[in-house]
Amino acid sequence: MSVEWSDDPAIEGELRIDERWTCRLLEDFIRIEVERTGKLEVVVGLSGGIDSAVSAFLAARALGGKHVLGLSLPYRTSDPDSLEHARLVARQCGIRHEVVDITPLVDAFVEGAVGLDPVRAGNVMARQRMIVLFDRSAAHDALVLGSTNKTELLLGYGTLHGDMASAINPIGDLYKTQVRALAAHMEVPAEVIAKPPSADLWPGQKDEDELGASYDLLDRVLALLVDARVSDDRAAASGIDLGLVRDVRRRIVRSQFKRKLPVIAKVSTRSVGWDFRYPRDWMS
Amino acid sequence: MSVEWSDDPAIEGELRIDERWTCRLLEDFIRIEVERTGKLEVVVGLSGGIDSAVSAFLAARALGGKHVLGLSLPYRTSDPDSLEHARLVARQCGIRHEVVDITPLVDAFVEGAVGLDPVRAGNVMARQRMIVLFDRSAAHDALVLGSTNKTELLLGYGTLHGDMASAINPIGDLYKTQVRALAAHMEVPAEVIAKPPSADLWPGQKDEDELGASYDLLDRVLALLVDARVSDDRAAASGIDLGLVRDVRRRIVRSQFKRKLPVIAKVSTRSVGWDFRYPRDWMS
Repeated sequence: MSVEWSDDPAIEGELRIDERWTCRLLEDFIRIEVERTGKLEVVVGLSGGIDSAVSAFLAARALGGKHVLGLSLPYRTSDPDSLEHARLVARQCGIRHEVVDITPLVDAFVEGAVGLDPVRAGNVMARQRMIVLFDRSAAHDALVLGSTNKTELLLGYGTLHGDMASAINPIGDLYKTQVRALAAHMEVPAEVIAKPPSADLWPGQKDEDELGASYDLLDRVLALLVDARVSDDRAAASGIDLGLVRDVRRRIVRSQFKRKLPVIAKVSTRSVGWDFRYPRDWMS
Repeated sequence: MSVEWSDDPAIEGELRIDERWTCRLLEDFIRIEVERTGKLEVVVGLSGGIDSAVSAFLAARALGGKHVLGLSLPYRTSDPDSLEHARLVARQCGIRHEVVDITPLVDAFVEGAVGLDPVRAGNVMARQRMIVLFDRSAAHDALVLGSTNKTELLLGYGTLHGDMASAINPIGDLYKTQVRALAAHMEVPAEVIAKPPSADLWPGQKDEDELGASYDLLDRVLALLVDARVSDDRAAASGIDLGLVRDVRRRIVRSQFKRKLPVIAKVSTRSVGWDFRYPRDWMS
């Protein structure tokens, strides 16, 4: 598999990555962060999708497959292909793999809830998965490895305290199209790369339907607005629909709360999140 | 009820608050944060303890009781007094109050888990409560109001993505002893102020047993180390056991990860959490 880059040199400049260099850098990132915290291994949720596959491949290369536990956490309505793809990924990169059915956890919630719509139910699923992953990481004295990419982070396309929760995230600064390039470079199974991205929270759900545009297009808009810092009009001048540009900017702004810690009311001289904000591995 | 302040002027300088001024400031904080996000109300977990009581009282004063929903989320083993105290708090400050039993949620997890110790089980409880609170906040188009105080935040005495999760936290910059002063000022029921603090995750659990010192003492150490920025030896020179001072500093350092977002590997020019870090209400 290979990835085609944009012909527009401005966009290509923002989105084009050197796959070999990026891989090495991200492997080093995982190894150093795990060592720093005194841990030996990571736990990663394996959805069967490309993002968690790339995180798992990177972790296997960084730590060795036996120090990586992939957990698949299907719900009753999850696409059976997702689990099949997760198994394929685990086999291919040589990590440990376990399956925990979250159906009893989600159904216990659904039974007690009133008027739950698919979005709220999806958030419950993502958060039940978080509980299993963080509990397993405690049991194994491991770190939870995240798989939220930059496109999802900027658009707020994910669940706070759910799939967006992790200890370290190797792919949070890579757009979806860049994740694809890395996946191809590391030889992630072709069927995982080729299938339409889906959060798989309900049957037939597709990211690109929900987001209203293809990832190729969304990443071009994001690279212009966020990385190149151009105005909406300038972005549209490159041939992208102005309505889409504005919608993307609105999504970035409205989802800012998902990229922040709780806001603490400041009343003292040194307040958590305001002045008391050392790095995570401060003095460790 | 009144609170006795330390005789040591250095410590008194750090810990003493003006209750009236602090109350008004925190009410404004809640009102402004709720308005800014376009919401009308808040949801707050009511444990029956003093911290959530103070958050609820502040919210009721800021927004009016009918715009505040208190949710009590007992587990099978929770102390029945906790629920009684929560009801008392809700009645006293005039907010809406509902009870959701989390036993089915927690037990569904416990049945599928192997070798769960009390700490891991406690984290599961705190996180199941988070799921209920955030789901209710979505249903009511409300914000989750947090109740983690500065002592807990600095010592890491709480569950990440559990009780530490919220949208806005009015008391995160107040030490436990300062929360007590505010509670007395706002006339939180005396039995809630007087009882020994407990996370109530298992029968007989007491904060001060687990932390190894009283909150009065812990807050004095924290005020010296964090707010006055003195060395361990200087702190001990004020008559506090050096072993305790060192233990407190170790706890602060080791729990730093609970006060940070996931670490994202930086590979681009603008990365979430590194260069892309606007305030939460940026442009809203």
